[in-house]
Amino acid sequence: MTDKTALTPATHTAPPARFSHGVKKGSILQVAGQVGFLPHEEGRAPTPAGPTLREQTLQTLANVKAVLEEGGAGWDDVMMIRVYLTDVDHFAEMNEVYDAYFAEQGLTGPPAARTTVYVGLPAGLLVEIDALAVLG
Amino acid sequence: MTDKTALTPATHTAPPARFSHGVKKGSILQVAGQVGFLPHEEGRAPTPAGPTLREQTLQTLANVKAVLEEGGAGWDDVMMIRVYLTDVDHFAEMNEVYDAYFAEQGLTGPPAARTTVYVGLPAGLLVEIDALAVLG
Amino acid sequence: MTDKTALTPATHTAPPARFSHGVKKGSILQVAGQVGFLPHEEGRAPTPAGPTLREQTLQTLANVKAVLEEGGAGWDDVMMIRVYLTDVDHFAEMNEVYDAYFAEQGLTGPPAARTTVYVGLPAGLLVEIDALAVLG
Repeated sequence: MTDKTALTPATHTAPPARFSHGVKKGSILQVAGQVGFLPHEEGRAPTPAGPTLREQTLQTLANVKAVLEEGGAGWDDVMMIRVYLTDVDHFAEMNEVYDAYFAEQGLTGPPAARTTVYVGLPAGLLVEIDALAVLG
Repeated sequence: MTDKTALTPATHTAPPARFSHGVKKGSILQVAGQVGFLPHEEGRAPTPAGPTLREQTLQTLANVKAVLEEGGAGWDDVMMIRVYLTDVDHFAEMNEVYDAYFAEQGLTGPPAARTTVYVGLPAGLLVEIDALAVLG
Repeated sequence: MTDKTALTPATHTAPPARFSHGVKKGSILQVAGQVGFLPHEEGRAPTPAGPTLREQTLQTLANVKAVLEEGGAGWDDVMMIRVYLTDVDHFAEMNEVYDAYFAEQGLTGPPAARTTVYVGLPAGLLVEIDALAVLG
């Protein structure tokens, strides 16, 4: 029996429902859908890093990374990244930000697989990202 | 070589295509996208539990659970829950129903991670949910 | 420490960003979102197999299969297939094509689980599919 543990970075606001920002069990680590909220400050409602796709994408990736690190993992362990955008016209810019971000992360192995689709998100949010990692 | 087995609860209607309601292989169990159809009755077409988000969410969660149990698993084994809604305005109510449901499930560990996005679904369906579990 | 390896079929165009068409680590193989692009030809931009749902679905499935095979896997190893369509009215036809395709694949075990949702995709693309496989 391997225990499932919750991954809750100190930077994160409490989830709006009964779910975990991330969970780890055995070699599998799953990061919940993250959005571009700034690190939590006591008494402040969840606040996006800014109105732009660039700001939100970078913050969202930082939030995913925080969950990975809480579980002792990093981007090199990630197998799949799911990117949810609200507008097909955001694809090129998201890719630019995404590529520049990962160029700076110093991955030692190949990048994760990815699926990008265009969905509805809560007002003000332009991007949501989740990730599946395999450790060890 | 570990066998992949199909998980087909007796309560479920036959899938509308060549897919399984759930599959299990080794320690991985994947539940296919479930919707709020009532338990199958011979000669009756698939019928949603009702027109409301509450009815459909509860039935959908029951359908996911039935697949988990068919594979000898339960909610405590679930790592990731993907919730597909059709309307951003349904988020708060879905969370209420979701939280109340899981409060009653007696989980012994942390809740699963979750991603919620807003997509199109077949007419009359307000919610679809799938789940990834890791056993053992 | 198990290495994560990239799966890059010779038939595939380079991904438009820093992601892999597929990755494999230990027993887990993840195929990135595939669309209906024809096998890559030097000097030709990514080109869909045709304008119809049937053509694109078949090509997309072939592209997923190419990634699986690059990782020494096949459809029998696939646990979950995510199908993204742009139009609810395409469901019945996609299922027809899907069922006929898998009937010809000679699976020895049960079919994978599946979730189908309706999202936005880049102009001209009617279907996107990704897959999670467990090997061994």
